[in-house]
Order: sequence, then C-alpha cells, then structure tokens
Amino acid sequence: MKKVHVNTGKPYDIFIERGITENCGEYIRNVSKAKKAMIISDTNVSPIYGERVKKSLSEFGFDTFSFVFKAGEQSKRLDTVYSMYSELTDNGFTRSDIIVALGGGVTGDMAGFAAATYLRGIDFVQIPTSLLSQVDSSVGGKTGVDIPQGKNLVGAFWQPSAVLIDPDTLDTLTPHFFADGMGEVIKYGCIKSTELFDILESCDNIKSIIDDIIYRCVSIKRDVVERDETDKGERALLNFGHTLGHAIEKEHNFQEISHGQAVAVGMVMITKASEEKGISEKGTANRISELCIKYNLPVSDRISLESIVKSSFSDKKSTGSSISLVVLDRIGSSRIFSVKKADMFDFCNV
Amino acid sequence: MKKVHVNTGKPYDIFIERGITENCGEYIRNVSKAKKAMIISDTNVSPIYGERVKKSLSEFGFDTFSFVFKAGEQSKRLDTVYSMYSELTDNGFTRSDIIVALGGGVTGDMAGFAAATYLRGIDFVQIPTSLLSQVDSSVGGKTGVDIPQGKNLVGAFWQPSAVLIDPDTLDTLTPHFFADGMGEVIKYGCIKSTELFDILESCDNIKSIIDDIIYRCVSIKRDVVERDETDKGERALLNFGHTLGHAIEKEHNFQEISHGQAVAVGMVMITKASEEKGISEKGTANRISELCIKYNLPVSDRISLESIVKSSFSDKKSTGSSISLVVLDRIGSSRIFSVKKADMFDFCNV
Repeated sequence: MKKVHVNTGKPYDIFIERGITENCGEYIRNVSKAKKAMIISDTNVSPIYGERVKKSLSEFGFDTFSFVFKAGEQSKRLDTVYSMYSELTDNGFTRSDIIVALGGGVTGDMAGFAAATYLRGIDFVQIPTSLLSQVDSSVGGKTGVDIPQGKNLVGAFWQPSAVLIDPDTLDTLTPHFFADGMGEVIKYGCIKSTELFDILESCDNIKSIIDDIIYRCVSIKRDVVERDETDKGERALLNFGHTLGHAIEKEHNFQEISHGQAVAVGMVMITKASEEKGISEKGTANRISELCIKYNLPVSDRISLESIVKSSFSDKKSTGSSISLVVLDRIGSSRIFSVKKADMFDFCNV
Repeated sequence: MKKVHVNTGKPYDIFIERGITENCGEYIRNVSKAKKAMIISDTNVSPIYGERVKKSLSEFGFDTFSFVFKAGEQSKRLDTVYSMYSELTDNGFTRSDIIVALGGGVTGDMAGFAAATYLRGIDFVQIPTSLLSQVDSSVGGKTGVDIPQGKNLVGAFWQPSAVLIDPDTLDTLTPHFFADGMGEVIKYGCIKSTELFDILESCDNIKSIIDDIIYRCVSIKRDVVERDETDKGERALLNFGHTLGHAIEKEHNFQEISHGQAVAVGMVMITKASEEKGISEKGTANRISELCIKYNLPVSDRISLESIVKSSFSDKKSTGSSISLVVLDRIGSSRIFSVKKADMFDFCNV
C-alpha cells in the first residue's frame, strides 16, 4: 500500500492499494463520523463496483444511499447536480454526512461540486475508477460541471477527505479509456520527471507497474497543488498540451476524440512549435510523439490549425490579449511562455 | 469613515461611509485589477442606485455590465444563478474580472454564490443597501440560494474582496424593512454586547446614530467570523432567535412575516423558555420583548408552538436526535444549549 499525503488548506491522504474498493468503509470511517453516505456513481460503474462499496460502508456503520446517473460527459450538467441535492435533502443528509464519488472524472467532478455546495459544503471521498481520474482529476480539489457555453465553467475548489485508488479497477477499462489516462501520465513525465518519462519509454508491460506509475503521477500533482492550491501560478504547468488539446476537443464537439487523446496531440503540436522557436531542446517533440504512439495515442488531428488556434482563445484561462502556454525546456522541465493572441497562429505554424 | 478589517482566510475591509456608493469605483479599484465589472442588482434597487455605481466604476476604468433580476426571495433560485453564468460568459468575463453585488440579502447571497462558482471562483464586492444586509448578510462570506426543499440549502463560503456600506441608502428603505434589520441589530446586543443593548434601550432617534450602530454590529460579527470562518463552532451564536425564527418563517411559507420579525419572535420565545428553566437571568425576556416592541417588531405569532417546534427539526443545522439552541445567560452573554428533540416542546412550552 502506498500513501501520499496532500498538505492543502484541508489536508488529506491518497491511498493506492489493489482491492481497496472492498475495504473502503474502513478508510472512510477513519476520516468521517458521518451517519449517512451517498454513493454517487454512473450507469457504467455502479453495476460493477456499487455493491461492494455499499457493503463495506455498511460494515463500518454508514447508512448508505445511492445516486446513479447516466454515464457520459453529457450528464455533467447542473440539472444532474440539482437531482443530487434533492436526493440528499430527501434523505435528510446533514452537514456531518458524506458523499462518496465512485467513478471516473465526470463522477468526481460533479459529486465534488455537489459536496462543495450542499449546505455550503459537506465532506466527500473520491474512489476514482479510471486511469485518468486516478492520476489526475481525483487529486487537487477541482470540481465542476459544464454549461452550454463551455466545459467546467461552473465549479469550486473543494478538497476531498480522502482518495482511495484501486488499480484493480483498471482491469475493467477498455483499451481506449486506458490510453486516455496514459495521455495525462505522459504529461507528468514531460513537465516534471525525466525518470517517469524514461520508464514509460523503456517499459514493456505498463500494466504490471501501473501502481508505481500512478504513485509517481499523484506525487507530482500533489507537489504542484500544495504550492498552488487555487490555480494562480505553478498549477498552470499541469495544463501542458491542454490549451491546444481543449481547443481540439471543442472543435470535435467533445465527441470522437477523448481528453487524453486531445492532450497527446496538443503536447506534440506545442512542442514542435517551441522546438522550432529554439525554446525546447531538439528532439523533444519526437520523443513525446513516439511515446504517445507507443501508448496508442494520436499525435495529429484533422482539424485545421486556424480553427484550433481560434478556439484556444476562448479557453477559460485566457485573459486579455495574450495566451499563456506551457512549454518544455526539455523533457522533465516546463515553464509558462506568454504569446500574444495575434502571434499565436504563427507561433504554432511549423 | 469607519473601517473594519476582517482577517479571514482571504482578508478584506468593510468601509462604512455616507455617500460611499457614489465613490465605489475608487474603493473597488483598490482591491481589483479587473477589466470588467458585472453589477448584480434587483428591480427595486437598480433604478435607484444602479446608475451612480456604474458611473463611478466607469470613472475608474471598469467596463461595466448589469444583471437585474425581479426583486424578492422567490428569485433566489438556481435558475437565476444560471442566468448570471450566461451573462458572465456571454460578456467574456474571466477569472480576473469582478462581480459587484448591489442590494439586499437576496442579491448578496446569490451574486456571492455566482462569484464563488463561476470559473471556480472570481472576486466580488458587496454594496449592501438594506439594514439587514449591512449588519448581517454582507459580512462573513456565506452565500447561497434556495431550493424547493428549503432556504439556503445550496451555497458556499466565499469572502468578498471588500464591503462598502452606505448608510444613506437606508433613507429609501420602508419602515417595514428598517424594522426587519433592527431584529438582527437587537440580536447582536443580546448575544455579545450589553453596551449596544443599553444604547438601543436609551436611544430616542436611532437613525441619527445608525452609522455607529452598524459599526458595532459589523465589528461583533467580524470577531465571531474570524474565530469560526466555516461555521463549526462559535458562529452558531449568531443564530440566537433563528432556530424558532426560521421555523416560524417556514410555517408562514416565507410570506407575511419578514426574517427580522421572525427572529424577534424567536428571541423572545426562546428566552422566555430559558428564563423559566433558570438558564437566563430573570427579566431578560422582558427586556428583549420591550426592545423589539420599541423598534416595531412582533414578539409573538399566531402559529402554534407544536408546529413551530416540529418545523425546527428540519433546520439545516439540526443533526441527529438533539437540537442546538442559542440561549442567553444574561443580556450580552450567550452560549449553545443542546436539547433532545423529544424534549423540545416541553422546553419551549412556557
């Protein structure tokens, strides 16, 4: 069992252990005196893991309730959060009760937002079941929902009471969703760890060492989040590949291409550009590209550069006449690089 | 000009000054580098003060936008907050822009919640225009909206960047709304300040000293909020009169009786009960009752005690089998007193 302590405003622990889902009640009881627990999950995950989580919570004295929503990003709406509020009030949830988010990024983001805003904030625990949510979205306290104008435009910073990561749940992931998470794993290597990047390059069987990989990613994110809990500085480095990646997702109407796939394309595109401008060490883009291909991720996209660049201007991190890009000096070393919006197309056009 | 510094997680200042509404741009510029300001106000307040706030903001370089909603508690819904999100995104508001809440408690609570959740939180400034919001809801960072199941069941703690209190705005308040605010003013005297209570008893012309009264109330609330920002301890004392008061409001369907009126009835009822039980000094209930009558507030209500007590059990602060009441030892000294729900009727029945 590996443990990562996160020292944010509200400190908490991340536990990585095969089979932890079946013993979740014990871990959750250690951080909560709640009488009631609301398990929030979707129609994909609930049938597989819902019962064992419920059983373990019951064993440790929680009255358990379930809220299951239709799987998919299209459910990540305020309407769904409304329904959660109703479920919580109808079952008499008080400020001392708890929400358990069981599932991928959509589940964690939405359940976390419900926890952040129900009665001005109640406790919640994350049990992320996808690789993407295990290495990324379950750590750091960002919660949110989509509105018609854009993704995650409504949300809050709200730290969980604990995160329980069970690498066994990855066995039920499709290869597509496994690759999706690998996009973010590669990102961590790019921005902060040559060692991680080297391991990913030399490894023959990633699944056999995935516990260690998750641990490394979570530790990197923890370090960044501790130094910048509310995303005003260093945390921006976690967006390497994301400015163009988000734009690509948007141009595909968030269909056809997954988040991790779009980030892979974004990392390669921006590093080709920064290499061309002499910012990144020669050969960096090529190494990233080869690693993405190795893990079944795309490295280019059919959307035109004009459309991608234009779309990137409406990113919620974009302010004023410039756009802040994350670029690599070399693998393992990243920094913010500001480009005028007017120069953005030329910068990216290589 | 009086200034109260609030040392919460995010520190800020409360300024009390006649005419400050006309110079608000200067104060807001001191705490914000925003390009854009969204003035959120209702159909009562916007026609009176909207233009002068807009003018002052423009003078200090803000691009100003307005969002006006139909005045009244029935607008305090998530739907109205949705519309705010749309207005913000449609006008390109970024994380560095600002919301200005201009109005009473409903406006501040809702605009504050929009600020807390738009892009995971942007800055906001409060310009409270009712006595109730000046002495109470604009201080302390509680934001929220109502859902069909109850008032303020959804919300967040989100501190403003500044609070600008202009006692001149009280000149446009009806006597009914002035009395509404006096309910909370009397509460501050009851729980924390014999001096304030004595002034209120001896004063002939409250409006002539209202600046000082507001300053005293805000300072008391500041002290409590600093020690308990997220409402886990001492802040509960601010709910003196509120457990029964909220229940009374609820039994009236939040019509017929205002918040301050209901709190007045609640303070008198609970103090009669605690005096009878030997908890409060003899004569305390009578002093509170006479002060409420002096300031045009009711001291009893037509709803039966059975209904009030039953309704109080669904209060969002109620947990488990007991209910935490705020009682006075004597005027100026308060504490929490826990009563079993099963004993609540007998406790209150005097």
